[in-house]
Order: sequence, then C-alpha cells, then structure tokens
Amino acid sequence: MHLGKVIGTVVATRKDENLIGTKLMITQPLSMDLKPIGEPIIAVDTVGAGIGEVVLYVKGTASRIAARKMDSPIDCAIVGIVDDITIDN
Amino acid sequence: MHLGKVIGTVVATRKDENLIGTKLMITQPLSMDLKPIGEPIIAVDTVGAGIGEVVLYVKGTASRIAARKMDSPIDCAIVGIVDDITIDN
Amino acid sequence: MHLGKVIGTVVATRKDENLIGTKLMITQPLSMDLKPIGEPIIAVDTVGAGIGEVVLYVKGTASRIAARKMDSPIDCAIVGIVDDITIDN
Amino acid sequence: MHLGKVIGTVVATRKDENLIGTKLMITQPLSMDLKPIGEPIIAVDTVGAGIGEVVLYVKGTASRIAARKMDSPIDCAIVGIVDDITIDN
Amino acid sequence: MHLGKVIGTVVATRKDENLIGTKLMITQPLSMDLKPIGEPIIAVDTVGAGIGEVVLYVKGTASRIAARKMDSPIDCAIVGIVDDITIDN
Repeated sequence: MHLGKVIGTVVATRKDENLIGTKLMITQPLSMDLKPIGEPIIAVDTVGAGIGEVVLYVKGTASRIAARKMDSPIDCAIVGIVDDITIDN
Repeated sequence: MHLGKVIGTVVATRKDENLIGTKLMITQPLSMDLKPIGEPIIAVDTVGAGIGEVVLYVKGTASRIAARKMDSPIDCAIVGIVDDITIDN
Repeated sequence: MHLGKVIGTVVATRKDENLIGTKLMITQPLSMDLKPIGEPIIAVDTVGAGIGEVVLYVKGTASRIAARKMDSPIDCAIVGIVDDITIDN
Repeated sequence: MHLGKVIGTVVATRKDENLIGTKLMITQPLSMDLKPIGEPIIAVDTVGAGIGEVVLYVKGTASRIAARKMDSPIDCAIVGIVDDITIDN
Repeated sequence: MHLGKVIGTVVATRKDENLIGTKLMITQPLSMDLKPIGEPIIAVDTVGAGIGEVVLYVKGTASRIAARKMDSPIDCAIVGIVDDITIDN
C-alpha cells in the first residue's frame, strides 16, 4: 500500500459504463513524513475519503477487490483513511 | 488511473489477431495541470476518444476489462474522457 | 522479492472491512548492503515481523497469497524475516 | 503497449520447459520519434518480428495471452509490427 | 524477461510456509552488455542457477508459473540460464 493525500476530483461524463457511480479522487503520493513525492494519480474512493485526508491506496487487482467491482476497469483505489503514522527508526 | 492526452495513432498491419479492430492511440501522460510527464504510451481506445482529448487511461488487467476482450494482449486502455479537473490543495 | 526494514506502523480506523485485523507495517526498501533505497511502502505483515527487523516483502497478487486473503485489497506483504545475506560478487 | 525495436536475440539452453520453442528477442524501448529510451528488455516474439523491425510489445499477463501459453513464465511479448506512427500534437 | 547475474543468496528461517524449500537468489539486473543496472532483487531459482551465472528472470504471476507454485507468495523467479546474447544494432 501507499500513502497519499486526496487533493481533488476528476469528472468524466463519457466513460466506461462500469465506472458510472465511482468517485475519481486525485491523490498525491506522500512520504511517511507527509511530503509530496512524485505525480498525483487518480484513485477510486471506496471508503468515503474527503479532500485533504491522508489515505492508504492500492494499485492493480487489489483496487478492483476494494471497489467490489471485479469487472470494472479500475487500477487504483483508496482503501483506508490514516489516523496515525508511527516511525521508530 | 492516469491522466493523458491523445496525440496520435499507431498502425500495425501484422499483429496478434485478437488486436484486429482495436484503435491504438498514442497517449501522452499528463500532470494534473495538464503538463506532459514522461514518455507517451500506446493505449487501446474503448470510449471513442479523439486526437487532442484529455483522457483517463488504465494499465494491466483493467485494460482488458475495459476492452471487453479478456483474451486480447492489451495492457493499456483509455476508459474515460475528462471534462473537469478540480484541485483543492 | 525485495529486501526491507520494518521502521514503523500505520493505523487506519476507517478502512476496507477486509483489511480489519491486518498489521500495516512501514517498510523501508534496502539495498543488499542494508542501505535505504527509495521511499518506504506499507506492507501487510504475515510472519510476525517486528520493528527493526530486516524482511522479505512481495508486491501484487503474491501479497494476497501471503495474507491468505485473496479477497482483501492488499498489494504488498512481508513474507519472511531475513537471517543472512551472502554476496559472492 | 510500448514501442520498441528488435535489436538482437538471447539463447538459453537450460530453461523452463514451457519456454522451449519461444524466440527471445532483445527489444530496445523507443520514444514515438524512434529514439532509444531506457534499457532493452527481452520479449517473446509472437508475430514473426525480425531484427531491426519496430514493434509493439506488452508486459504482464497480456504477454502470456499473446503467446497462447498461459502456463509459460513469460512477462513480455511482441504483439505487432508497426507500419506507421502519426503524431498530431 | 530481464537479464541478471546471480550474485548471492538470502536465508530466511521464519517465512511463509509455501516458501519452504525455495532457493532465494540475489540477482543483479544487467544491461545487454552485462553491466549492472539498478539494485539487485531476490528471485526464486527454478532452473538450478549458480552463483556468477547470467540468467533470465521474470516478475509477477509469471514467477509463480515458473515455480509451479501458484499458491506461493513469489513475485520474481529465474527461468533460464543464458548461453549467448547477440546484438545486431
């Protein structure tokens, strides 16, 4: 899993019909000290994540499992909202 | 999912027979402010995307789901045409 | 497989219900001489790994196999605790 | 899919028996203006590609689909020979 | 597939029980002229590869196919020992 922050949304009216009803969240990958790393990606929300929240997201088949839509063309999904990060280096 | 812009097409006459009839679109990955990032890839169009349009594309198994061709050797597909991107940093 | 070191934990109360009970470990990728390389990722522990231990982790479907939870949205898991690394260059 | 150029071959006598009979082609990834990008990879030929030809190749499960060998340990395959690339920036 | 050189081994006593009996080989990715590229990874040997040998390795599901262990948490495997590399640029 990866750490990210929800920073926006994408609207696509013409899309695969199995994507209808999904929420497409722009998610900024974060380091463990919550710094942005790399380019944002677009993840399907499956846990009610809101703008500004720090989340866990997954890629690939795991994202279709999260969405309970194995026949949807999803390759990234938000699966949790992070409460706490503890580093013991 | 990833954001991209359709910038061209590829023609391949000799190809896997399960690719016959697919439209192979050259897709430039974009940042959320629509700047090119990295090298273009070749995605199968599944939503009627045209040259110049900003699209959502997926990789891996999700692309065969989008194409409704699970027995086709596809690893990237366009699944939506983007109407609007909203960033709330 | 990849080499990593467990350096922390993540708590997410609101999450996919199939993730309930999993231990989310912050794992720092390591080179073979145990130097950090790249950004930490979040892996599900399946072998009782503790903070500070050097571990083997896997990505993708292999991680759901490791967790014995094929219906969980997991894309990274710890599958072994490393005792010894031998390099014969 | 990705664009590449076939630049050589690899011979491996001791190999997985499900790879027997496959042609292992060294494939240089190309940009859309046919410049080399990154390191060559080794792809299984499924369309009769020859040295010097510009090809489409795929990664992952798509490559086993292309090879019609779902039980072979293949993770990259050539699926088409490119006739024409059109860019409309 | 990728080219690599076996440069060492990893021992993990506490590990997923479906990994018992596997040989975990430290594999240095190589360019086609046999120069090291990037960080070594840990691949399961399926062809009797020895230290110092130049090998072909695969990632993802292909590695479980190679190991004939679809229920093992393997995401990288050695599938061939390279005899000859021919480049015709």
